[in-house]
Amino acid sequence: MNDRPMDIALEEARSAAARSEVPVGAVVVSNGVILSRAGNRTRERNDVTAHAEIDAIRMACSALGQERLVDCDLYVTLEPCTMCAAAISFARIRRLYFGAEDIKGGGVVNGVRFFDQSTCHHIPEVYSGIAEKEASELLVGFFREKRL
Amino acid sequence: MNDRPMDIALEEARSAAARSEVPVGAVVVSNGVILSRAGNRTRERNDVTAHAEIDAIRMACSALGQERLVDCDLYVTLEPCTMCAAAISFARIRRLYFGAEDIKGGGVVNGVRFFDQSTCHHIPEVYSGIAEKEASELLVGFFREKRL
Repeated sequence: MNDRPMDIALEEARSAAARSEVPVGAVVVSNGVILSRAGNRTRERNDVTAHAEIDAIRMACSALGQERLVDCDLYVTLEPCTMCAAAISFARIRRLYFGAEDIKGGGVVNGVRFFDQSTCHHIPEVYSGIAEKEASELLVGFFREKRL
Repeated sequence: MNDRPMDIALEEARSAAARSEVPVGAVVVSNGVILSRAGNRTRERNDVTAHAEIDAIRMACSALGQERLVDCDLYVTLEPCTMCAAAISFARIRRLYFGAEDIKGGGVVNGVRFFDQSTCHHIPEVYSGIAEKEASELLVGFFREKRL
């Protein structure tokens, strides 16, 4: 694995925090080329679906002019939620790399564990714990500041 | 329940079929006012997230200028998938009315049954089987024609 995509995802997460969004960032890569990068924009856009992963997937599909991201990998700083896990499967993402686990809201190794279900028709390879410390610290810092 | 929103959802599903999209339609209603109506556009937009429910939710949020659809109801011709079920919960939809069940891809009364999970933090009231016959016939007809 190339470290660089997760570094960019972390940059996107930091930019999200600076916009007062929950700091999550995502990047889609195809054969070493970065197709898209996105941070969470749910507040800015008044759009609960504007998670970093959804935006990164939509932008990558748009860049390629195709509905499926075959041979593409997604890097995201936080374990995808149930909505994003399903979108990742629908988009046929090959490999999913994520940072911190999300015990409360995750849908990959927590919650519904979507990829383990019989109604999941495409299962990406999953690698977790990539830059976990940085990703987690960003989230903890963000929510600590919100509580002050 | 007012029948009219599901009739409009069925119109949207028929329009989707005419565009060679899987025929699913959705409508968001707030206090008797239709805020948004959408049909599936995944092929047209090269966007796996462009399900009728997601588009209807995004348009309704945009119309209201807010991230949450408190006191809003969603009518959709087919049982929402896992991705859409999660988006419905995130948007705080009050009541979900759907037509046909989706044994293979549904995430409400089939599959992950998202609203029954402890990681689901808002549960809408769910009413199923509304205009089930029409919704189901549209889908069966569409896939029969595709196989010919």
